[in-house]
Amino acid sequence: MTEHDLLDVAIKEARKGLTEGGVPIGSAIMDAQGHIVGKGHNLIFQTKDPTAHAEMCAARTAGIRNDWQSFTLATTLSPCLMCSGLITFYQIPRIIIGDDTTVPGARNTLSRHQISFEILNDPSCIDMLQTWIDENPKKWAVIEGHEHPNN
Amino acid sequence: MTEHDLLDVAIKEARKGLTEGGVPIGSAIMDAQGHIVGKGHNLIFQTKDPTAHAEMCAARTAGIRNDWQSFTLATTLSPCLMCSGLITFYQIPRIIIGDDTTVPGARNTLSRHQISFEILNDPSCIDMLQTWIDENPKKWAVIEGHEHPNN
Repeated sequence: MTEHDLLDVAIKEARKGLTEGGVPIGSAIMDAQGHIVGKGHNLIFQTKDPTAHAEMCAARTAGIRNDWQSFTLATTLSPCLMCSGLITFYQIPRIIIGDDTTVPGARNTLSRHQISFEILNDPSCIDMLQTWIDENPKKWAVIEGHEHPNN
Repeated sequence: MTEHDLLDVAIKEARKGLTEGGVPIGSAIMDAQGHIVGKGHNLIFQTKDPTAHAEMCAARTAGIRNDWQSFTLATTLSPCLMCSGLITFYQIPRIIIGDDTTVPGARNTLSRHQISFEILNDPSCIDMLQTWIDENPKKWAVIEGHEHPNN
């Protein structure tokens, strides 16, 4: 499974979120053998859980592990500081980012922790989220959060 | 409700975790009027959710809000980078830390984001967790995570 294949799994998750009436952001985690070990999508509106970012939901499905350091995580939107904190806490070494134009995310934090990341800026990630934001500005304002430029 | 009262709610949560067979770390959130709006304890072992740190669980019970900026969060253990990321994302301005001797947490991140924090180093927080760690070294190794000194 390539980086693009893994991002495709994350995009499918984002689409699931959209069909559920949520914000379309998805994430997927694969192990060193290319097997999916976790996937999920933003569930903030579906579950009223303010921590339910896509990366968090993907990690939840992966469960308790001691092999995080062999994983790659893909996410359709650049991870915020909370999700980057999750990534550095368990030392997931490699991140595939589908879109860092809508939100820059905490790339400085990933760099500071020697997490390798690739930014693909895939049009389907960008367009899907941007369309949702244009149609749901008030909902987006509630979940957008504060992103410090030095994150 | 004072800082110590709020920390007491967090300590009660930590004790609940202990009775459930989990790691005793608790958290509580109060609003500007001193009402508890969220509380929770670490549920990693109870629910096999690697993101279920006490602060995350407390925020989950608070739900979707637009008034995070008037809250104070107490936690029995200094928050890691993931939980500090949650705090900065929603801009919770004030944190009460029961113990920063067992784990230093991401205090630099809190400072960088102008989050005010008080470190109480309450013996009941420190002793309860340290006793658990001494009795459960293998479990602690699984959930300890990587804490960079510059966090």
